[in-house]
Amino acid sequence: MPVQKFAVADAPFERLDEQDALIETANLVDQRHGGPVTVGFGRYGPGAVLEEVIAVYDTMIVLEGKVSVTSDVGTVTAEPGDIVYMPEGERVIIRASKDGALTAYVTYPHWEEARA
Amino acid sequence: MPVQKFAVADAPFERLDEQDALIETANLVDQRHGGPVTVGFGRYGPGAVLEEVIAVYDTMIVLEGKVSVTSDVGTVTAEPGDIVYMPEGERVIIRASKDGALTAYVTYPHWEEARA
Repeated sequence: MPVQKFAVADAPFERLDEQDALIETANLVDQRHGGPVTVGFGRYGPGAVLEEVIAVYDTMIVLEGKVSVTSDVGTVTAEPGDIVYMPEGERVIIRASKDGALTAYVTYPHWEEARA
Repeated sequence: MPVQKFAVADAPFERLDEQDALIETANLVDQRHGGPVTVGFGRYGPGAVLEEVIAVYDTMIVLEGKVSVTSDVGTVTAEPGDIVYMPEGERVIIRASKDGALTAYVTYPHWEEARA
Protein backbone atom coordinates (compact mmCIF):
# COMPACT_ATOMS: atom_id res chain seq x y z
CA MET A 1 0.00 0.00 0.00
CA PRO A 2 1.39 3.45 -0.93
CA VAL A 3 0.83 6.71 0.94
CA GLN A 4 -2.89 7.03 1.41
CA LYS A 5 -5.45 9.36 2.97
CA PHE A 6 -8.57 8.13 4.73
CA ALA A 7 -11.69 10.10 5.63
CA VAL A 8 -14.35 8.88 8.01
CA ALA A 9 -17.02 9.28 5.32
CA ASP A 10 -15.38 6.50 3.28
CA ALA A 11 -14.66 4.15 6.17
CA PRO A 12 -16.15 0.62 6.07
CA PHE A 13 -17.60 0.42 9.59
CA GLU A 14 -18.54 -2.98 11.01
CA ARG A 15 -19.93 -4.00 14.36
CA LEU A 16 -17.18 -4.94 16.76
CA ASP A 17 -19.12 -7.91 18.18
CA GLU A 18 -22.34 -9.55 17.13
CA GLN A 19 -23.86 -8.85 20.49
CA ASP A 20 -23.10 -5.16 20.61
CA ALA A 21 -24.39 -2.81 17.96
CA LEU A 22 -23.08 0.25 19.74
CA ILE A 23 -19.44 -0.08 18.82
CA GLU A 24 -18.17 -0.13 15.25
CA THR A 25 -14.66 -0.30 13.87
CA ALA A 26 -13.36 0.42 10.39
CA ASN A 27 -9.90 -0.91 9.66
CA LEU A 28 -8.30 1.05 6.84
CA VAL A 29 -4.85 -0.53 7.00
CA ASP A 30 -4.30 -3.93 8.59
CA GLN A 31 -2.81 -7.42 8.16
CA ARG A 32 -4.11 -7.54 4.60
CA HIS A 33 -1.69 -4.80 3.53
CA GLY A 34 1.64 -6.22 4.66
CA GLY A 35 2.69 -3.54 7.15
CA PRO A 36 3.13 -3.86 10.93
CA VAL A 37 0.28 -1.59 12.12
CA THR A 38 -3.49 -1.49 11.94
CA VAL A 39 -5.03 1.94 11.33
CA GLY A 40 -8.73 2.72 11.52
CA PHE A 41 -11.70 4.66 12.83
CA GLY A 42 -13.86 3.67 15.79
CA ARG A 43 -17.44 4.75 16.38
CA TYR A 44 -19.09 4.44 19.79
CA GLY A 45 -22.82 4.83 20.28
CA PRO A 46 -24.20 6.91 23.17
CA GLY A 47 -22.97 5.43 26.44
CA ALA A 48 -21.25 2.49 24.76
CA VAL A 49 -18.94 0.50 27.03
CA LEU A 50 -16.04 -1.74 26.00
CA GLU A 51 -14.28 -3.78 28.70
CA GLU A 52 -11.15 -5.52 27.53
CA VAL A 53 -7.62 -6.60 28.24
CA ILE A 54 -5.72 -4.78 25.53
CA ALA A 55 -3.96 -7.36 23.33
CA VAL A 56 -1.82 -4.84 21.42
CA TYR A 57 -0.28 -1.40 21.84
CA ASP A 58 -3.34 0.71 21.09
CA THR A 59 -3.26 4.48 20.54
CA MET A 60 -6.65 6.18 20.32
CA ILE A 61 -7.18 9.76 19.15
CA VAL A 62 -10.57 11.27 19.97
CA LEU A 63 -12.11 13.10 17.00
CA GLU A 64 -15.67 13.74 18.22
CA GLY A 65 -17.47 13.30 21.53
CA LYS A 66 -15.87 12.22 24.77
CA VAL A 67 -14.38 8.94 25.95
CA SER A 68 -13.32 7.89 29.43
CA VAL A 69 -10.83 5.10 29.97
CA THR A 70 -10.58 3.35 33.33
CA SER A 71 -7.53 1.24 34.13
CA ASP A 72 -5.48 0.20 37.17
CA VAL A 73 -4.20 3.74 37.54
CA GLY A 74 -7.60 5.46 37.50
CA THR A 75 -9.85 7.10 34.93
CA VAL A 76 -8.89 9.58 32.24
CA THR A 77 -11.35 11.51 30.11
CA ALA A 78 -10.41 12.42 26.55
CA GLU A 79 -11.99 15.06 24.33
CA PRO A 80 -11.47 15.87 20.65
CA GLY A 81 -7.76 16.25 19.94
CA ASP A 82 -6.66 14.20 22.95
CA ILE A 83 -4.66 10.97 22.68
CA VAL A 84 -5.08 7.91 24.91
CA TYR A 85 -2.20 5.43 24.94
CA MET A 86 -3.11 1.90 26.04
CA PRO A 87 -0.18 -0.52 26.32
CA GLU A 88 -0.48 -4.25 25.70
CA GLY A 89 -1.78 -6.21 28.66
CA GLU A 90 -3.67 -3.40 30.40
CA ARG A 91 -7.24 -4.08 31.49
CA VAL A 92 -9.39 -1.12 30.42
CA ILE A 93 -12.99 -0.03 30.43
CA ILE A 94 -13.67 2.43 27.62
CA ARG A 95 -16.88 4.42 28.02
CA ALA A 96 -18.33 6.81 25.47
CA SER A 97 -20.20 9.88 26.67
CA LYS A 98 -23.95 10.18 26.24
CA ASP A 99 -23.50 11.64 22.76
CA GLY A 100 -21.19 8.83 21.63
CA ALA A 101 -17.75 9.29 20.18
CA LEU A 102 -15.64 9.01 17.05
CA THR A 103 -12.00 7.97 17.32
CA ALA A 104 -9.00 7.09 15.17
CA TYR A 105 -6.74 4.23 16.24
CA VAL A 106 -3.33 2.82 15.46
CA THR A 107 -2.38 -0.56 16.88
CA TYR A 108 0.86 -2.55 16.88
CA PRO A 109 0.67 -5.34 16.06
CA HIS A 110 -2.67 -6.00 14.33
CA TRP A 111 -5.53 -5.97 16.85
CA GLU A 112 -7.85 -8.27 14.90
CA GLU A 113 -5.24 -11.02 14.81
CA ALA A 114 -4.34 -10.56 18.48
CA ARG A 115 -7.99 -10.57 19.59
CA ALA A 116 -9.06 -13.61 17.54
CA MET B 1 4.08 3.45 31.28
CA PRO B 2 0.43 2.74 32.19
CA VAL B 3 -2.66 3.88 30.30
CA GLN B 4 -2.27 7.61 29.81
CA LYS B 5 -4.07 10.56 28.25
CA PHE B 6 -2.27 13.38 26.48
CA ALA B 7 -3.62 16.81 25.57
CA VAL B 8 -1.92 19.20 23.19
CA ALA B 9 -1.81 21.91 25.87
CA ASP B 10 0.60 19.78 27.93
CA ALA B 11 2.78 18.61 25.04
CA PRO B 12 6.52 19.43 25.16
CA PHE B 13 6.99 20.78 21.63
CA GLU B 14 10.51 21.06 20.22
CA ARG B 15 11.80 22.24 16.86
CA LEU B 16 12.21 19.35 14.48
CA ASP B 17 15.48 20.68 13.08
CA GLU B 18 17.69 23.53 14.14
CA GLN B 19 17.29 25.21 10.79
CA ASP B 20 13.51 25.15 10.66
CA ALA B 21 11.42 26.85 13.30
CA LEU B 22 8.20 26.13 11.49
CA ILE B 23 7.84 22.48 12.41
CA GLU B 24 7.68 21.24 15.96
CA THR B 25 7.16 17.76 17.36
CA ALA B 26 6.21 16.62 20.84
CA ASN B 27 6.87 12.97 21.58
CA LEU B 28 4.64 11.79 24.40
CA VAL B 29 5.53 8.11 24.25
CA ASP B 30 8.78 6.92 22.66
CA GLN B 31 11.92 4.80 23.10
CA ARG B 32 12.28 6.07 26.67
CA HIS B 33 9.14 4.21 27.74
CA GLY B 34 9.90 0.67 26.62
CA GLY B 35 7.08 0.14 24.12
CA PRO B 36 7.31 -0.37 20.34
CA VAL B 37 5.63 2.85 19.13
CA THR B 38 6.22 6.57 19.31
CA VAL B 39 3.15 8.74 19.90
CA GLY B 40 3.08 12.51 19.69
CA PHE B 41 1.74 15.79 18.39
CA GLY B 42 3.12 17.72 15.42
CA ARG B 43 2.73 21.43 14.83
CA TYR B 44 3.35 23.01 11.41
CA GLY B 45 3.66 26.72 10.92
CA PRO B 46 1.88 28.46 8.02
CA GLY B 47 3.10 26.96 4.76
CA ALA B 48 5.69 24.74 6.45
CA VAL B 49 7.20 22.08 4.18
CA LEU B 50 8.86 18.81 5.22
CA GLU B 51 10.53 16.69 2.54
CA GLU B 52 11.65 13.30 3.73
CA VAL B 53 12.05 9.62 3.01
CA ILE B 54 9.89 8.11 5.73
CA ALA B 55 12.11 5.90 7.92
CA VAL B 56 9.23 4.27 9.84
CA TYR B 57 5.56 3.41 9.41
CA ASP B 58 4.07 6.81 10.15
CA THR B 59 0.35 7.44 10.69
CA MET B 60 -0.69 11.09 10.90
CA ILE B 61 -4.11 12.28 12.07
CA VAL B 62 -4.95 15.90 11.22
CA LEU B 63 -6.46 17.76 14.19
CA GLU B 64 -6.42 21.37 12.96
CA GLY B 65 -5.65 23.06 9.66
CA LYS B 66 -4.88 21.28 6.43
CA VAL B 67 -1.93 19.20 5.25
CA SER B 68 -1.10 17.95 1.77
CA VAL B 69 1.18 14.98 1.24
CA THR B 70 2.86 14.39 -2.11
CA SER B 71 4.36 10.99 -2.90
CA ASP B 72 4.98 8.77 -5.93
CA VAL B 73 1.26 8.19 -6.30
CA GLY B 74 0.23 11.83 -6.27
CA THR B 75 -0.97 14.37 -3.72
CA VAL B 76 -3.58 13.90 -1.02
CA THR B 77 -5.03 16.69 1.10
CA ALA B 78 -6.09 15.95 4.65
CA GLU B 79 -8.41 17.98 6.85
CA PRO B 80 -9.31 17.63 10.53
CA GLY B 81 -10.36 14.06 11.26
CA ASP B 82 -8.55 12.61 8.25
CA ILE B 83 -5.77 10.04 8.54
CA VAL B 84 -2.68 9.86 6.32
CA TYR B 85 -0.77 6.56 6.29
CA MET B 86 2.87 6.79 5.21
CA PRO B 87 4.69 3.47 4.94
CA GLU B 88 8.41 3.06 5.57
CA GLY B 89 10.58 3.96 2.59
CA GLU B 90 8.18 6.34 0.86
CA ARG B 91 9.51 9.72 -0.23
CA VAL B 92 7.02 12.38 0.82
CA ILE B 93 6.62 16.13 0.80
CA ILE B 94 4.33 17.28 3.60
CA ARG B 95 2.97 20.80 3.19
CA ALA B 96 0.89 22.68 5.74
CA SER B 97 -1.79 25.09 4.54
CA LYS B 98 -1.37 28.84 4.95
CA ASP B 99 -2.90 28.66 8.43
CA GLY B 100 -0.57 25.89 9.57
CA ALA B 101 -1.66 22.58 11.03
CA LEU B 102 -1.79 20.47 14.16
CA THR B 103 -1.44 16.70 13.89
CA ALA B 104 -1.16 13.58 16.04
CA TYR B 105 1.24 10.83 14.99
CA VAL B 106 1.98 7.22 15.78
CA THR B 107 5.13 5.64 14.37
CA TYR B 108 6.46 2.08 14.39
CA PRO B 109 9.24 1.75 15.21
CA HIS B 110 10.52 4.91 16.92
CA TRP B 111 11.05 7.72 14.42
CA GLU B 112 13.72 9.57 16.37
CA GLU B 113 15.93 6.49 16.47
CA ALA B 114 15.31 5.70 12.80
CA ARG B 115 16.01 9.27 11.69
CA ALA B 116 19.19 9.76 13.77
